[in-house]
Order: sequence, then structure tokens, then C-alpha cells
Amino acid sequence: MNDRQNTLRINADRFRKRFDALANIGATTDGGVHRPALGPEHLRAREWFLMEATAAGLTTHVDGAGNHSAALSCGPAGAPVLLLGSHLDSVRYGGRFDGALGVLAALEILQVVKEAGVALETNLEAIDFTDEEGTHLGFLGSLALAGAITPQELRHPGSDLGVFQKALAKAGLTENSILNARRAPSTIAGYLELHIEQGNRLNTSADDIAVVTSIVGLRRQKVTYIGRADHAGTISMKERRDAGQGAAALMLSSRRLVMKEFPESVVNTGAIEFSPGAMNIVPQRAQLTLEFRAPKPHDLEQLGVALQQLVYAEARERELDVTIEEVDGIQPVQMNGQVQAAFVAAAEQLGLSHRRMASGAGHDAQVMAKICPAGMIFVPSVDGCSHSAREFTEWEDCINGANVLLQTAVAGIPSAD
Amino acid sequence: MNDRQNTLRINADRFRKRFDALANIGATTDGGVHRPALGPEHLRAREWFLMEATAAGLTTHVDGAGNHSAALSCGPAGAPVLLLGSHLDSVRYGGRFDGALGVLAALEILQVVKEAGVALETNLEAIDFTDEEGTHLGFLGSLALAGAITPQELRHPGSDLGVFQKALAKAGLTENSILNARRAPSTIAGYLELHIEQGNRLNTSADDIAVVTSIVGLRRQKVTYIGRADHAGTISMKERRDAGQGAAALMLSSRRLVMKEFPESVVNTGAIEFSPGAMNIVPQRAQLTLEFRAPKPHDLEQLGVALQQLVYAEARERELDVTIEEVDGIQPVQMNGQVQAAFVAAAEQLGLSHRRMASGAGHDAQVMAKICPAGMIFVPSVDGCSHSAREFTEWEDCINGANVLLQTAVAGIPSAD
Repeated sequence: MNDRQNTLRINADRFRKRFDALANIGATTDGGVHRPALGPEHLRAREWFLMEATAAGLTTHVDGAGNHSAALSCGPAGAPVLLLGSHLDSVRYGGRFDGALGVLAALEILQVVKEAGVALETNLEAIDFTDEEGTHLGFLGSLALAGAITPQELRHPGSDLGVFQKALAKAGLTENSILNARRAPSTIAGYLELHIEQGNRLNTSADDIAVVTSIVGLRRQKVTYIGRADHAGTISMKERRDAGQGAAALMLSSRRLVMKEFPESVVNTGAIEFSPGAMNIVPQRAQLTLEFRAPKPHDLEQLGVALQQLVYAEARERELDVTIEEVDGIQPVQMNGQVQAAFVAAAEQLGLSHRRMASGAGHDAQVMAKICPAGMIFVPSVDGCSHSAREFTEWEDCINGANVLLQTAVAGIPSAD
Repeated sequence: MNDRQNTLRINADRFRKRFDALANIGATTDGGVHRPALGPEHLRAREWFLMEATAAGLTTHVDGAGNHSAALSCGPAGAPVLLLGSHLDSVRYGGRFDGALGVLAALEILQVVKEAGVALETNLEAIDFTDEEGTHLGFLGSLALAGAITPQELRHPGSDLGVFQKALAKAGLTENSILNARRAPSTIAGYLELHIEQGNRLNTSADDIAVVTSIVGLRRQKVTYIGRADHAGTISMKERRDAGQGAAALMLSSRRLVMKEFPESVVNTGAIEFSPGAMNIVPQRAQLTLEFRAPKPHDLEQLGVALQQLVYAEARERELDVTIEEVDGIQPVQMNGQVQAAFVAAAEQLGLSHRRMASGAGHDAQVMAKICPAGMIFVPSVDGCSHSAREFTEWEDCINGANVLLQTAVAGIPSAD
């Protein structure tokens, strides 16, 4: 990298202007955004992205999975492309930063490199992946690009199949086009993503940048305790077989277990339902969701075993039956070591403090890691808040993150050998 | 009472035949019945009741609250009426015995007295009260008869108002007709009800009959814990403010409290909901129902205070906010002492073992107690099971209960002075 490249910086005003413009698309009254994948607000945001890229003199492209790209030929003829990206969709009633920051930083970087007229060893592409958040089928865009999705999976979205297919049709996508969106790994030099941390660790350690070491694996289960429905006024406390008590006990003991024995892991019960569900009937059935995450495959496995023992122990103690249904899961994914090193070098060159951490959330980088060197950096989330209108990152941190991404992109990823 | 009256017994075959015929109306495939108040199955059951009464030579009457009655003039001119009754409606997918047993026993008793041609000190009426189970508005029929319902209450049913009003119209009832269903207390000599226990105490003590001393009071609350919605993968266990943990802790600690300090009381959480309700989001809000019952007003009050302290303590410990919304409540009601004595005398005359107990469930008798001497007896519920297709009472116990009711009815209720 020459000195000229070393001094490249993003245009903070332009970056900010675009950030505010994008935050207006699907804006909610409380300062958040509502852009579920393939919904009208999301499609408008993607159109806006293509217009901005075109206005910046970049070429644009939409692939068969709906991934929206801006491209810059800045490498030698036939050079692979270094992808910079994230996603423009949001969870329902989410925040302005999640995904949007990474796509806008990528767009800004392509424009800066184009304006500077520097030649790199790779071409650059800013990519907005389809449905990262899983409104219909999480990581749809990156999975398709990586050739890691099957027709079967496309027919079993998390949302209703009819709703999904209607949304695909509206976006001009078909099962075939999605399956054909695969790219040859040889054409891809790597994948870099800037994202907000969505947790509180950078805030607490007061570092500027986190270099992501791995993306945690997770397992999602539905645990169903079965007891006996009884009239809640006539059955004695001692005789009732209350499925709700099993669920409540598991919620408390699973939290205690993780805090005590798996300090790097987390567990969550985000949804619960009792049936028959009447105030005056002892719950016959209590179904709760159990989601747990661990940064290493071994931890995920051990935690799974320990939680399973707990699920059964809480049932036994209360004479309940119980079933565990595995909903989905994903193995922890290591981020590329060379990419991590490149991020560290860029942060140091920029005088930014940095630390390493595992990502507790899933990201397209975990999918891209299947086919190319992939890595991520995080910038601090105020109060660790995310997936909420209260999601916030200081503007200076956004600029820092974009500059680290820019410097890493222009330096390129050293090969492993 | 003369010897002839002493030897009166119900006709067990006829009683059984009617029981089976009624159980066919709204029968479910698993042996239960589904006759929610004012629904088509319930209306069919009531029509059937009037036809049976007419065929038995009794006069019939439907009042402005939809209460269905069979009447027998067996007392002196102008004598008050002794009401015997229960209800033909069921909870959704309930059992064959709850309510039906009491109405059929009452009908059978009127027929036996009529056939025997005995003269009593009161007239008799077998009454099927409207909506005892609260499909729309619990105890609607007895409240109306007692003059204890207001237009405001009629406009705030537990079900949807539109649904309620449509159901009333279909049954030929109006707000006005309900408010005019009130009867003068001077016309009523008392109210006696036979019911299944719906609990396991008679089973355990192996007694034939329970004479009810009081009907427990209850309070129903919605408790809402408020924490913070966070991404369940990125927020550390320590930092999360998980509303679900507050709810789970309360479910366990409220059970412990009642078992340890309020042995005659019960508490139940029959329904719970987390929001936003996603597997991967820490619950921001957890709402659970808290229903608790106690046999004496003082206990109900003390339990209410202790539970409230617990609700707040669980919130404080987890840095959650919490609100308690009072949904409804009813004070414990003492059953009439003379009626209890009359039931005991009848059971002893019949050579049946008996014990006293508080009713853990609500019954029309608690409403009728406002305007006349009221009392109840229970017969054993196998396994204490109720509000379920598995609800069952041995046929011999049904006959015993009906004969105690018969003997009490013909003996009459001694006046308190």
C-alpha cells in the first residue's frame, strides 16, 4: 500500500447524509425503521441504494437471489472481487444501524476509491444481501450466493410458504433464479463486513473497534412440558401436575447454569405458551423456546447436553412429561485469521483501540466464510441495544468503522501462504 | 317429615337414562361434552330439559335471563319455592357431570315428589342457571335472579360484547329482560345444589358426601413485568433485563408461598405471554395471570398482600418494572348453617358418611346466598379431575348425592329462629 492509499478516508458528510436518507425509508415514529425483507419499505430502500450507486458512477447489479450490488473495477483484468457488505432489511420495528451501516460504508468506500482513482489488487463490490434477518428465510441472499441453499429449504421458510412466494414474486425472484445466484468461489477474493456490535462489550471496555474472531453457533429448541389440566380452585397445590411450573423452573435454572458453567455462552426463552390457557385451569401443556449460543463447537455441544439434563430434571421433579423439538441450529464459524490480522493492522494505522471478540449474533459473514476469507468488525452499540428503535451508535464510531473497512479493503487481504 | 317421606328415593334407572341422554348433547369423541353457554349445543340441552320436564307432568318456565325451570306445586297456596338446581352449560370441552348432575337430580326429585303425591311446606323448582361457567358472563342467570347484575356489567362481558349480544339475541334475551328477571327474596325458601367436588378430597378421605361450608373467594390479576428487549445473542446474561425471568420466578415463589403459609389456599398461573415473543429476543414484557383463592375473607386479604409483596420483590431483584391489574374478584361466601345441618341430617338418615369442606370452585350457590338460605353438597370426583373429558363420578355416588338432596328438599330447611 502506498502513502496515498494510507491517507484515504471516507467522506463523512456524504456518508452521514446517506445514512439519514436511508433511515427515512421505513422510518417509525420512535426513531427506528421497519423494513422486513422483501416488504415495500425494504424494496424502496434497495431501489434507493441502486440510484445512489448509479449517481456515484458505480455500476449496479441485482442477482437472482435479489442481492443488490454496486461494483467498481479497480483491479487488474480478471481479478477477483472483494465483497464489502451487509443488509438493508431490518427486523420488524428495528433500528437504523443494524445492516444499514455496513452497506452504506461499503458504498462510500467504493466511491472514495473511485474518486481517488487508485488501482487495487482486486475489484470491489458493495453488496446488500437479501433477508439477513430471516423475515422469511435467514441469510437467503448469502446462502444463494455461496451455493448453499436447496430447493427443500426454499420450500420451508420460517414464514408462511404462500406469503414467502408472494414476496419473492413481487421482488421478481423465483426458486430457479435463487438457485442460479451461486458464484464461483474463485471469483471472490474475500468478504468484509462492518456492523454494530449489538452488545455492550465495546461500550464497557471503551475500545473503538472489535475484530470478530468467530460467530457463535446456536441451537433453537421448543421444549414442551406436559402435566394435567385441572380446575385451579379444586385441586390442591400438592396434587396438581402443573406444566407451567416445569417451564418456569427451566427458565430460572437454565439461566443459572449458563452463568455459572458457560460464561461465554448465552441462553434465552423468548416465547412461551400455556394451554388450555385459561386463568382458572392448571396448565396441561407449557411450551417454551430455548435458544442457546456458544462461540466454539465443543461448548455448544456441552451446553446442549447440560441443558437437556436440566430439561428432564425439571420434568422429573414435578412428575411432568417433556419433549424437546430441535428447531434449528448452526455451528460456530471461525473468521479468517488473515482478515482479522488485516483489520488489526488497519485499526492500528488509524490509531484506533481494538479488541477481539466473538459475535453473539449471526451474520452473512458466517455464510460467506464457507467460500472465501471472511471477516467482520464491530463498532460500539450504546447500551448494547439492538433490534429496537433505541439502537444507537455514535457517529464518530460509524466513521471509525468505515475507515477501518476502507483501509482494509485498499490494503487487501494477504494470502495465507 | 313422616315415614312415607323418609323412604322416598330417586328412580335410579330413569335418572341414569336421562344422564346418558343429556351427555349425548354436545358430546365430544373423547367422552366429554362441549356446551358453552348460549351456544347451539347448550340451547339444545335446555330444550331437551323442558321436554323432559313437560313429559314428567311438571310445568316449565324460562325467565328473562334464560334460566330454565321445571316447577311443582306441592306446598300450600302462596308458599315460597325451594329452588334445586345447577347448570347445563359446560366449559369448552368439559365433562359430563359438572352442572348436569345437579340439574338432573333436581328434575328427578320433582318427579319423585309429584309421583308420591306428598305435600311439602314449600313448592319445588328445578332450575338450570344461565352461563354458570362464564363463557360470556359468569353466573349471569343467578345474578339476574338475585337482582345483582347491572347494565354496566352486561356491557362488559368476559367474551366480546358483539359475540355476547348476538348469543343473547339468538336465545331470545335482551338487556331489559335480564334486568327484569329479578325475583323477590320473599318468594324463595332457599337454594340447594348437588355438584361434583371437582377436587380429590372426598376421594382421599373416602367419604360419600361433602357438605359445603363456604365457597372460596378469589382474586384474578394480570401481572406484567417490563424489562428490555435485547438481541438474545449479543447481550450478556448479566446485563439483560429479562421480563420472562420475573414471571418465572413469581410462578415458583407464589406456589412456595401458598404451600408454606396458606395451606387452605391455592394459586394458579394459567396463561402467560412474552413480547415481542421471538426466540432470539430477550422478552421486554411478560404478562402472566395470577389467580388465588381462599376460604375466608381474612385469608384472601392476607394472601393478596403477601403475593403483592412477592410480585414486587421478584421485580426489584431483577431490575424490572411491574404492574398488577386487578381483573376480578369475589369474596368468600358462607353457606347457610341451617342448610348445612339439614344436609348432614339427610346424609345420616341415609347412612352415608360425610364431611364438611370449603368449595374451591365458584358456584351459583354463592350468588343465591345473597338472597336466601343456600347450600351445596358434593359427591366424589374420581382423581379430582374436572373441566375435562376425564371428569368422572361413580354412578353410585351420583345416586347418593341425589337422594341426600331429595331428603333435604322434602324435609325442608328449618328456619334459623
